[in-house]
Amino acid sequence: MAKEKEMVQVDRILAAKEDDYGGVTVEMTNEPLDPSVFASLLRASLSHWRQQGKKGVWIKLPIELVMLVEPAVKEGFIYHHAEPKYLMLVSWLPETANTIPANATHRVGIGAFVVNERNEVLVVQEKSGRFRGTGVWKFPTGVVDEGEDISDAAVREVKEETGVNAKFVELLAFRQSHKSFFDKSDLFFVCMLQPLSHDIQMQEREIEAAQWMPFEQYAAQPFVQGHDLLRYISDICSAKMEGRYTGFSPVPTVTSFSAKKTYLYMNGNVRTTGQQRPLM
Amino acid sequence: MAKEKEMVQVDRILAAKEDDYGGVTVEMTNEPLDPSVFASLLRASLSHWRQQGKKGVWIKLPIELVMLVEPAVKEGFIYHHAEPKYLMLVSWLPETANTIPANATHRVGIGAFVVNERNEVLVVQEKSGRFRGTGVWKFPTGVVDEGEDISDAAVREVKEETGVNAKFVELLAFRQSHKSFFDKSDLFFVCMLQPLSHDIQMQEREIEAAQWMPFEQYAAQPFVQGHDLLRYISDICSAKMEGRYTGFSPVPTVTSFSAKKTYLYMNGNVRTTGQQRPLM
Repeated sequence: MAKEKEMVQVDRILAAKEDDYGGVTVEMTNEPLDPSVFASLLRASLSHWRQQGKKGVWIKLPIELVMLVEPAVKEGFIYHHAEPKYLMLVSWLPETANTIPANATHRVGIGAFVVNERNEVLVVQEKSGRFRGTGVWKFPTGVVDEGEDISDAAVREVKEETGVNAKFVELLAFRQSHKSFFDKSDLFFVCMLQPLSHDIQMQEREIEAAQWMPFEQYAAQPFVQGHDLLRYISDICSAKMEGRYTGFSPVPTVTSFSAKKTYLYMNGNVRTTGQQRPLM
Repeated sequence: MAKEKEMVQVDRILAAKEDDYGGVTVEMTNEPLDPSVFASLLRASLSHWRQQGKKGVWIKLPIELVMLVEPAVKEGFIYHHAEPKYLMLVSWLPETANTIPANATHRVGIGAFVVNERNEVLVVQEKSGRFRGTGVWKFPTGVVDEGEDISDAAVREVKEETGVNAKFVELLAFRQSHKSFFDKSDLFFVCMLQPLSHDIQMQEREIEAAQWMPFEQYAAQPFVQGHDLLRYISDICSAKMEGRYTGFSPVPTVTSFSAKKTYLYMNGNVRTTGQQRPLM
């Protein structure tokens, strides 16, 4: 689906782009279309694509064209995924087992362990969420945006919540949890960052308070010590500060399939032998 | 949204469950409902929830009730997410900034490095996908199911594709890539597994060939050596076999918020001091 080859525009059928997997994608413009006209166009198009041996047929419907959802479903389409402004439907034409790609299953979040040369850690109190009003000081956390690198998200969240500039150092650990919202899962990455500035400028909308705090004081909070996961993370951070821990570092790699640069997160502390090409 | 408190059933409004975030979720049964009746019920319900100071209103519509999507959108709902059999819509009632949770953004996949005592690695050739017909031998790979632990997914995929029973050992590295399908991202975890059985029973539907191959022979394939990411992964596996590499191990932790068991993946090879409680 990623790359699009050519426009297929035949009279009386829907305009569609071919994909690399033997399928086509219909991208509807926002212009209103009568549902019965759409249904008739869709039937003719499906017949045409079936003759051509097409496999997956995708229709991306902007929310403005909500009136076309029902006719599409009546022609055998099912939902694939949705975002606030559009719904993606799909229909698998051949008799063979469908190879429609799975929908996204995970939300990705980060927690930022920002520690300065005096072993002070950057902590916040949030205005909403489960920690609201508890007096608990926590690391800045946030959700990784669509298309955003984990390392970039950590830097961005720290800047947004506290105004502090920081540099990504290492990914220390991550947690996978399930049914975090509805049936979806969650991956939460604990990232270590090095501060590049000191002064705090708090984001008023989300943050109640922010400060630099001696790490020991953060770790000694009863809430941290009484909470299995937070205690582990605190222990990892402590081990890291004392040079007893190695997490994963992002290494840029190029995927020849797509020529896109992507990050491989790996242990950078590899003991290489003489014969071995260094990994980093 | 995760936990539901009580049923709110008032005459002439839609049945809805309250959530922990000041919102309500309407779960429609599959019974047909006239769109205009639904629209009128929905208007009365929204008015009621607004008076109650409710925030997010969620409607989960089974695909059988596709005729109710349009009336919901006309009453101000937007799409949140969709799966083949349902569409989730949401509307944020108050004037305050919305705190609707982000949709899932990532698909999660695994690659399984299964290596036996003779330094032979389990490799396959696939019947479809980008490697089809290339003669390239690759690690078994697959998609992590909704609600499935990464470590379980690796064991399952090896069993499904090759019939080999294996035990999860360590997570060696992972790659994050973007726009893998439409606008969604991908997290691909390289897992090391220890085989518990030897005989191969190939899955005919997806797999063209499967065998145990000396690791050096796998790594020497021109495709692996010519491909940035695969060469890195091969180097990591090689370093791991020689005891020069440490990845992340899953540690079960309990989140007191929800009492759910979740895995924290961390470097288990922590040099602990005398005073320090061991992490593992």
